[in-house]
Amino acid sequence: MTILLYDLVGADAGRPYSPHCWKVAMALAHKGLDFQRVPTRFLEIAKVEGGISKTVPVIRDGDSKVIDSFTIALYLDQTYPDRPSLFGGQGGEAMARFIERWSQLTVHPFVTKAAVLDIFEMQDQDNKAWFRPDREAKLGRSLEEVVAGRDAGLAAFRASLEPLRSMLKYQPWIGGEGPLFPDYIVFGALQWARVVTSYQLLEDGDPIADWFERCLALHDGLGASIPAAA
Amino acid sequence: MTILLYDLVGADAGRPYSPHCWKVAMALAHKGLDFQRVPTRFLEIAKVEGGISKTVPVIRDGDSKVIDSFTIALYLDQTYPDRPSLFGGQGGEAMARFIERWSQLTVHPFVTKAAVLDIFEMQDQDNKAWFRPDREAKLGRSLEEVVAGRDAGLAAFRASLEPLRSMLKYQPWIGGEGPLFPDYIVFGALQWARVVTSYQLLEDGDPIADWFERCLALHDGLGASIPAAA
Repeated sequence: MTILLYDLVGADAGRPYSPHCWKVAMALAHKGLDFQRVPTRFLEIAKVEGGISKTVPVIRDGDSKVIDSFTIALYLDQTYPDRPSLFGGQGGEAMARFIERWSQLTVHPFVTKAAVLDIFEMQDQDNKAWFRPDREAKLGRSLEEVVAGRDAGLAAFRASLEPLRSMLKYQPWIGGEGPLFPDYIVFGALQWARVVTSYQLLEDGDPIADWFERCLALHDGLGASIPAAA
Repeated sequence: MTILLYDLVGADAGRPYSPHCWKVAMALAHKGLDFQRVPTRFLEIAKVEGGISKTVPVIRDGDSKVIDSFTIALYLDQTYPDRPSLFGGQGGEAMARFIERWSQLTVHPFVTKAAVLDIFEMQDQDNKAWFRPDREAKLGRSLEEVVAGRDAGLAAFRASLEPLRSMLKYQPWIGGEGPLFPDYIVFGALQWARVVTSYQLLEDGDPIADWFERCLALHDGLGASIPAAA
């Protein structure tokens, strides 16, 4: 049965961009499971599956409804153990949490700084009216003020990725010889940036950019199938 | 047969302090393997097992000699698969490399900044004469200049540990419900600091300090058996 993935979009239903939804899309493809993306705007999340979650992704798999990207990945490995593992065992399930926290606290804040105004511009009118005051309250500044700091923060952001860059000298994927869920975690964050903004996060020739290109090509080019922001 | 662990010490042979050697000591204890620490000073490393490595740890296990802490941990899991795993599967082996790179690039530079002069003071005369010029060339400054920056860097260092702090809201160990090798990786770095310097790296009440105390108590208090620097 086809799994439904409630997937965040802006005005254009064909440009899914949420980092957390991308993690799940890649995880579903990794498992070789059929899935259908259900384009969902911020103001529609409250109606998803009877209001099961304040955020997407949400998946519906037959009678099961699961929320939260990490929980969904664990669910998929437990429910479909005969398909390729997302974690490579119990140690990987645990250590992926560290990498998820690193990505959330290192990559996500700078993508927000770089792209929050682009994300605003992607929304339709109703969602724009909701997004700006919501985010400005959370960030404590106007969206314009947030983005004004991005050039000054870029070098420090690139330096903060050094653990990943250094790791790539040892192995081609965070998952080792092949990608695992933590690759999709960090990919999701950078794909979010790629889809929403033309601002260049990674320097040309950065080994992380090479790894990201390999991620874009995975699963018949699932990530690459959405063009980068112009 | 007892495994030999060539283990870095200063003038006092009873105070092993190397972060990488501590990773291996904890790993050997985790596996429940008998081992004997062979106190080794910097200038003695060239003679260890016929000069097999420029650094310690080195282990000798029967006819096998293994160098490099991460390689040793992989060797132990492969050689003693029936004893408690250090990685919890192939995914864990891969993801532990990311955490090792994070620890090396986040924790180690600040411990060096905080403690390099204390490490110098722990050495005997011959090793002092070697250590200062070696480290000053690597660091590009006098040891005194390096340490002078520690107070100014402390807040940023504590903030840089946020991925670990945040992860501890989800699970008690990097390894999940129990410790795995990545716990020993980060423990090794903080135990290095604990043994060599009285400078306080972690704030009282930091959840990372609680985790570190739990690490000190593991394996019959192996870590706690060496008193903190006074």
